Amino acid sequence: MRRYPPERLIAFAEQVLRAVGVRPDHGRVTAQRLVEADMRGRGGHGLIRLPLYVSRIEAGGVNLDPDIRVVRENRVSALVDGDNGLGQPVMTLATEIAIAKAREEGVAWVGTVHSNHAGAAGVYTAMALRHDLAAIYFAVANGNAMPPWGGKERLLGTNPIAAAFPAGEEIPFQLDIATTVASHGSIKVKAQAGEPLPEGWVVDEEGRPITDPDRADEGFLLPIGGYKGAGLTFMIGVLAGIMNGAAFGRDVVEFRKDLGTPTNTGQAILVLRPDLFIDMEEYRKSMDRHLRDFRSSASMTGDRVRLPGEWAWEREQESLRLGVPLPEELVVRLDELAQRVGSPARLG
Amino acid sequence: MRRYPPERLIAFAEQVLRAVGVRPDHGRVTAQRLVEADMRGRGGHGLIRLPLYVSRIEAGGVNLDPDIRVVRENRVSALVDGDNGLGQPVMTLATEIAIAKAREEGVAWVGTVHSNHAGAAGVYTAMALRHDLAAIYFAVANGNAMPPWGGKERLLGTNPIAAAFPAGEEIPFQLDIATTVASHGSIKVKAQAGEPLPEGWVVDEEGRPITDPDRADEGFLLPIGGYKGAGLTFMIGVLAGIMNGAAFGRDVVEFRKDLGTPTNTGQAILVLRPDLFIDMEEYRKSMDRHLRDFRSSASMTGDRVRLPGEWAWEREQESLRLGVPLPEELVVRLDELAQRVGSPARLG
Repeated sequence: MRRYPPERLIAFAEQVLRAVGVRPDHGRVTAQRLVEADMRGRGGHGLIRLPLYVSRIEAGGVNLDPDIRVVRENRVSALVDGDNGLGQPVMTLATEIAIAKAREEGVAWVGTVHSNHAGAAGVYTAMALRHDLAAIYFAVANGNAMPPWGGKERLLGTNPIAAAFPAGEEIPFQLDIATTVASHGSIKVKAQAGEPLPEGWVVDEEGRPITDPDRADEGFLLPIGGYKGAGLTFMIGVLAGIMNGAAFGRDVVEFRKDLGTPTNTGQAILVLRPDLFIDMEEYRKSMDRHLRDFRSSASMTGDRVRLPGEWAWEREQESLRLGVPLPEELVVRLDELAQRVGSPARLG
Repeated sequence: MRRYPPERLIAFAEQVLRAVGVRPDHGRVTAQRLVEADMRGRGGHGLIRLPLYVSRIEAGGVNLDPDIRVVRENRVSALVDGDNGLGQPVMTLATEIAIAKAREEGVAWVGTVHSNHAGAAGVYTAMALRHDLAAIYFAVANGNAMPPWGGKERLLGTNPIAAAFPAGEEIPFQLDIATTVASHGSIKVKAQAGEPLPEGWVVDEEGRPITDPDRADEGFLLPIGGYKGAGLTFMIGVLAGIMNGAAFGRDVVEFRKDLGTPTNTGQAILVLRPDLFIDMEEYRKSMDRHLRDFRSSASMTGDRVRLPGEWAWEREQESLRLGVPLPEELVVRLDELAQRVGSPARLG
């Protein structure tokens, strides 16, 4: 592991993106969101994604000078058309609009269409958190890996949901999950460690467990809670895909394999004032009290009970204090990428 | 099984509730929502609940003449204070307000406080569906049966989420799930059948599986997808409980055991126009196309792939055609209840 000041990593990624023709403002926002994921300990959606983004750009799969704009709007909602630009600037604009509307009206729903992979779900709900707002984010994943419950055609992805709620003195509650038991990232981790996959992660066409991580691609991911998670994944597909005119089901482009076809990715974010119904002070006190009740409750394992968001929060604080950690091999890959695209920046 | 016209069952429940002092309008709405659950094949939240409701009323746990009213409101949101009235009239009013606001503004968020158990989650999202609107419903369950992930104090319930999205010609997508793998109802079914519980439903204080259904109460329910489902359950608790000033965590009243204490139940419903961003005709066509893609996709089991909501839809059609099915033993129990409270109505 090597550690870097966040700004150095952002500048690095920005320069790489500029070297392949990305607009400076879009390059900067994309770099920021990627590094935020690394800072939060979500390396699978951080700078590790930069090589794939560059490959898609080089294959003509991304519009380098998109006209990202609001195409439908009312007081509490908006649809942002990303014009096939990078997902981070599209989803950042969508989140900023949702934040502004929710501050005025208490509630806002903003969707995207013709967007692209936007990285870690939790970085967008965290934007709302910095404004003392609550948020829930939904996205259609950029690839299908799961059939409907009882089926065997891959029509569903790992469609993520993220949620964030402010607190007072306590670490805020932040959830950031795929609706499948395992993500592609967690399978890759097992493969690299040479460990078998636990049963319940991946099954073959007959529903039998696949435990060899190198055979995971032959199989299907399993949804959380069986038919329940498959239902949640479909629900997210309607909210972030169908309702926005974005891809879902058979329209989803496998963005790792088909580098040149626009993905028409869709996302959606709901932003709420947490003090919609009770005063902010009362909300903060109540949230703090419940968070403390949970965190101080009896443990099954001996370790203190931890809630979603604590780990990301601690990693973020640590990254600010000590620098953002990157694995050595990623540093090497990123420097090779920078050299190849003619960017002067280096991390090694 | 015996079958009854829906109106006969509604009138029966209405008379029982009137006999114990419930206001006629509240008795009628409560009876309607309960029978709608039976019609949709969700018997666990149908008339089977009537004896418990009556017991709570007799114990003074429910306000028979509540002043159910909006206590906070803006163009797109409202908080309904149920004044400890029955949950069905409270949540029905909340849903009607959300529907009216969403028709005007496209998006609406309505919460409840000092409400009570409101029955099947899906009957409220189905109300939105009848207005060609999409809806997502959240509720804090009336009892805790699950610790936080890694803990062993019961701080979380089966907090349900329901979602409904209109379609064109296809059966609409409707999801109605607890965020635990098993519900109290599904455990009761296993107990009655004398079958063991599958592993993964209930664990003891050390995390070991409990498979004896009669010992289920000693253990903890497991969330869908481990820490992911535990996180979703907490998220629902914030949306439907904390944000509304309603019970969550240690404040939750065990409504089956403690009949007299007001539960301060909280619910929340988000209603969206599905044509917020694309024209209704385009939305319907897209939804139909995706539903057909899923339903006609290759099956793992030989049976056609089925989506959430199909079963409820078919049961509802069947109930309208042939009558609403009730088990014989429930008919006996309901008639005993009617006799005991001095209602003239009988089903037997």
